[in-house]
Amino acid sequence: MEIFYSNNIQGDYLFLSQEESQHCIRVLRNKVGDVVKVSCGDGNLYLSRIENADSTSTKLKIISQEGDFGKHNYFLHIAIAPTKNMERFEIFLEKGTEIGIDEITPLICDHSERRVIKQERCERVILAAAKQSLKGKMPYFNSLTPFNEFIKSTSSFKGEKYIAFCDNELIDNKGNPIERIHIEKRLRELYEKNGGNTPEVIVLIGPEGDFSKKEVESAISSGFLPISLGNSRLRTETAAIIVCCAIYLQDQ
Amino acid sequence: MEIFYSNNIQGDYLFLSQEESQHCIRVLRNKVGDVVKVSCGDGNLYLSRIENADSTSTKLKIISQEGDFGKHNYFLHIAIAPTKNMERFEIFLEKGTEIGIDEITPLICDHSERRVIKQERCERVILAAAKQSLKGKMPYFNSLTPFNEFIKSTSSFKGEKYIAFCDNELIDNKGNPIERIHIEKRLRELYEKNGGNTPEVIVLIGPEGDFSKKEVESAISSGFLPISLGNSRLRTETAAIIVCCAIYLQDQ
Repeated sequence: MEIFYSNNIQGDYLFLSQEESQHCIRVLRNKVGDVVKVSCGDGNLYLSRIENADSTSTKLKIISQEGDFGKHNYFLHIAIAPTKNMERFEIFLEKGTEIGIDEITPLICDHSERRVIKQERCERVILAAAKQSLKGKMPYFNSLTPFNEFIKSTSSFKGEKYIAFCDNELIDNKGNPIERIHIEKRLRELYEKNGGNTPEVIVLIGPEGDFSKKEVESAISSGFLPISLGNSRLRTETAAIIVCCAIYLQDQ
Repeated sequence: MEIFYSNNIQGDYLFLSQEESQHCIRVLRNKVGDVVKVSCGDGNLYLSRIENADSTSTKLKIISQEGDFGKHNYFLHIAIAPTKNMERFEIFLEKGTEIGIDEITPLICDHSERRVIKQERCERVILAAAKQSLKGKMPYFNSLTPFNEFIKSTSSFKGEKYIAFCDNELIDNKGNPIERIHIEKRLRELYEKNGGNTPEVIVLIGPEGDFSKKEVESAISSGFLPISLGNSRLRTETAAIIVCCAIYLQDQ
């Protein structure tokens, strides 16, 4: 099943962007009168008929809509330092979208090697993965945000807040090692406590050089729980994919 | 920590291949007398001293060895149809190795779009990921195997055998829909039953066009349990990564 994406919905009508129109009309050779499926990234799948087969701006009339399509029963927001090699970050964007994620914030951290990203390119990777994996809702991709600013922005968030870091030997202000709970254990307890109800989770993933001690302390004092992702030494993007899997696998 | 890889161990001595020697001597500028860490893919990490800083065949003397390094408490073998686009298959090889996998068999299936692979290139991807993620044991990469032959080869395997397929509407010979158990649920039950003891698991992952009905039936009649990987529509390589995560996350 091929679905198209539109961010232009006007009453009973949908309009495809130039890129999507090209794909729909030129590449797949759809014609006036053909019925196709369109997602607007709002959680609905619109069955719609082509009214104007214009390969720069295709106009479609909505026939019916299916709500909550391709939906998952959790809310996952990953805030992550983009990797030095952008391809690796894009693997996360693609796999995360495919598995199921709701919001992504690229972070600037103390040890970040990358401090610029191409916002539009990232959004395009997410769009392609959302279409390919038939997701009704597009993950929201925020702009690059400094670590401290992000932490502040989560102060009123009522769900679970986790920070994943690698350093096994970090100690707290009292000289005790910082204990970490395994993400799978924590999520399972949460699901059992809530009777399978939707958990809302924000997870921080650091850059190649890990979070600084200051960042870990600042997150913990802002209510982030230190979590462990197991014993393997993981690349940044793999850590983020494992977080997506951990919550996805609990949602059965 | 940088580790080197050697498949040439002779008594108390290790020899690096030309590629590894280049990296050790030319790139990282190690010299005679320097002590470095070497993995032989046999589960040990060898602390060894450079005796001959030859950038084509470095010779090292073993000082000490650390067993079971980078080890996990399960055995996972994934038999998977390589994707049409080799890059996608390589993402699985890399991520699987990084997360933790023991054996990989590339399969030729009824709907396979790819029937040739570059064995050496795949092994190189696995080696790089094993080194990067500090794994003591290299996952074993088998040669391309026809589906039926693989199924036969597992007949005496005593562990869990799973087949993951996409088609929700497959029916068995009696006309009943084929039920699938969620992988996370199954693994969790297994861990609880065995008191956290090592499970041994073989998982079949199909090509882009899924397994054929005949293949699914043949696997089931050979003792493979139909499993579900959740509700997302997943690419082949993503399905395999999720399988790795599912078993990795249980091993705490």
